[in-house]
Amino acid sequence: MKTLHVDLGARSYPIYIGPGLLERPELIRELLPGPELVLVSNETVGPLYRKPIQQAFGLGAEAIIELPDGERFKTLETLNQVFDHLLENRFSRKTTLLALGGGVVGDMAGFAAASYQRGVPFVQIPTTLLAQVDSSVGGKTAVNHRLGKNMIGAFHQPLAVLADTNTLQTLPKREFAAGLAEVIKYGLIADAEFFAWLESNAAALCAKEPAALEHAIARSCAIKADIVARDETEQGQRALLNLGHTFGHAVEAVMQYRGILHGEAVAIGMLLAAKMSALLGALTESDVARVQALLQACELPLAPAEKLPLQSIKEAMLLDKKVVAGSLRLILLDTIGTARVTADFSEASLDATLATVFKH
Amino acid sequence: MKTLHVDLGARSYPIYIGPGLLERPELIRELLPGPELVLVSNETVGPLYRKPIQQAFGLGAEAIIELPDGERFKTLETLNQVFDHLLENRFSRKTTLLALGGGVVGDMAGFAAASYQRGVPFVQIPTTLLAQVDSSVGGKTAVNHRLGKNMIGAFHQPLAVLADTNTLQTLPKREFAAGLAEVIKYGLIADAEFFAWLESNAAALCAKEPAALEHAIARSCAIKADIVARDETEQGQRALLNLGHTFGHAVEAVMQYRGILHGEAVAIGMLLAAKMSALLGALTESDVARVQALLQACELPLAPAEKLPLQSIKEAMLLDKKVVAGSLRLILLDTIGTARVTADFSEASLDATLATVFKH
Repeated sequence: MKTLHVDLGARSYPIYIGPGLLERPELIRELLPGPELVLVSNETVGPLYRKPIQQAFGLGAEAIIELPDGERFKTLETLNQVFDHLLENRFSRKTTLLALGGGVVGDMAGFAAASYQRGVPFVQIPTTLLAQVDSSVGGKTAVNHRLGKNMIGAFHQPLAVLADTNTLQTLPKREFAAGLAEVIKYGLIADAEFFAWLESNAAALCAKEPAALEHAIARSCAIKADIVARDETEQGQRALLNLGHTFGHAVEAVMQYRGILHGEAVAIGMLLAAKMSALLGALTESDVARVQALLQACELPLAPAEKLPLQSIKEAMLLDKKVVAGSLRLILLDTIGTARVTADFSEASLDATLATVFKH
Repeated sequence: MKTLHVDLGARSYPIYIGPGLLERPELIRELLPGPELVLVSNETVGPLYRKPIQQAFGLGAEAIIELPDGERFKTLETLNQVFDHLLENRFSRKTTLLALGGGVVGDMAGFAAASYQRGVPFVQIPTTLLAQVDSSVGGKTAVNHRLGKNMIGAFHQPLAVLADTNTLQTLPKREFAAGLAEVIKYGLIADAEFFAWLESNAAALCAKEPAALEHAIARSCAIKADIVARDETEQGQRALLNLGHTFGHAVEAVMQYRGILHGEAVAIGMLLAAKMSALLGALTESDVARVQALLQACELPLAPAEKLPLQSIKEAMLLDKKVVAGSLRLILLDTIGTARVTADFSEASLDATLATVFKH
């Protein structure tokens, strides 16, 4: 087991990473402020993994909430069902929520914890690779609104994060690969050595070898924690976490979020960012080839399955949240391991980059 | 105009109190982080008072949200209408909300600000006496749930509070008196001199004389700010703010929140707390008489209009949030100006106190 400490003053917390942690309730127990506990999960993950926690803490049916599974249920309506359950069963403001599941469960249970009786503590127990490397750090919680994703939420830090790498064994292959896209991102934006380690260990990761998983997750969380600590207000450095995301979101939007996973879109976006960085003279062609090879080794797509119209992608990019005063800003690479936010590029260079993947 | 500073480190903010402040938009303008503004009010208060703000900041129809008027609309559903409006009109996360109205508007706009895109700034412009003395300090925001009041919310501090005492001129008499109940509370729990000032100035207050209003509001906010600063986590001192509230909530609950205002119930509750304090030997009978006289001078009720069953009141008190491990805690007075939380009283003394107002 690896332990990381996210340093946020009074709101600091540990991240535990390793195989079999669901069987070690003492890691959670010592942090709980009181005996009232409610496990929030979904109908898929709950039955698979809740047992050891349920037994360790003696949770009855009234202390288990299983939400419907899927991003489309990440709404204020579903959130209200959590509040219904908590109030009907008279859970007080000393209650701790345990969020067991992927990003959707973590985001919703986290926001429920942020707003139930104006805030109760919660513990993240992420069961997908994406949630383990991404949602564990940063304190972001939210639900979607029909007019935008994650539009209603709060910053709410957990008491602890328990990332049991064994839960990744049941994760579908595509979802696992999508998580790896974010892992690769951390290497690209901040750590050339970690990127090289990923190149050497791609096979071990794809085979879900526990030691490789533990290292990849711990290093990803550490990089994210470092960036977030330097930029809590999300103005500068933190934007680097969006490498590949402006391209990726555009791909997702044009495909209407169907047939592509977020991490797959990010993989496509990161390759585009690398290509554009090379076109602008920052990155070498051999580095672009390394990015492409690692994505392939991790069984990630290099382009969408269908050829999308370039013009639609450009329009979707301009609707991105990160467009400031009408000017598109992108995260580009200077080398493998260093990135920066920039609006200093020509439309022609953007067009040329997009033309490698999308149709005119 | 009086200016108070609520000292909360990075989240410190000013409270401006005085007549005609709605006509002084510069007080707000200098604090705004950006030009995007949305005024949130209700259908009653908006048309009466929004004009000067609307003109000063050039707000179009897209920047005005008027909620239905009334506590029964303080729900997650109405809150979602605020989000609908903000997103339909593409307001960014740099938007500041201006909450113009009473406690319901302040609570809802405040919670909307706390959770829109994970938090945007807001300014409180309270237009009722209760909101000016109570909601201005403490950062509490919330909506109700069918199973409990203020069950879903957040702590979110405003950029500033602008309490224009002129808005109290249109406030119905009963609502104004209900606000005075909370003002009297501040004297009772923390400031004997202020209580004496209220005795001398009750007539001026009831006549809504600007100088008297300004002093009463400023002193109330200062006392609350002082208590909150010493106890942000709501464990000890802050409980004193609930003087009269456990009795009062029980009265409201038994009356099913009909035919009585919160402040009226608190007035009845404060008198009961004073009587019980005297019964236990802490307060003198002449102090009880002073409490009663001041409530009467402020045109507040000393008992509910109908005689409620004592047993129902006791049962409702035991359902109160402040019941810890089955034992009822009450705020009682040692003198006028000093109070404490205690569970050290006999059931007989509680019964005897309740019997002065409720029927066996």
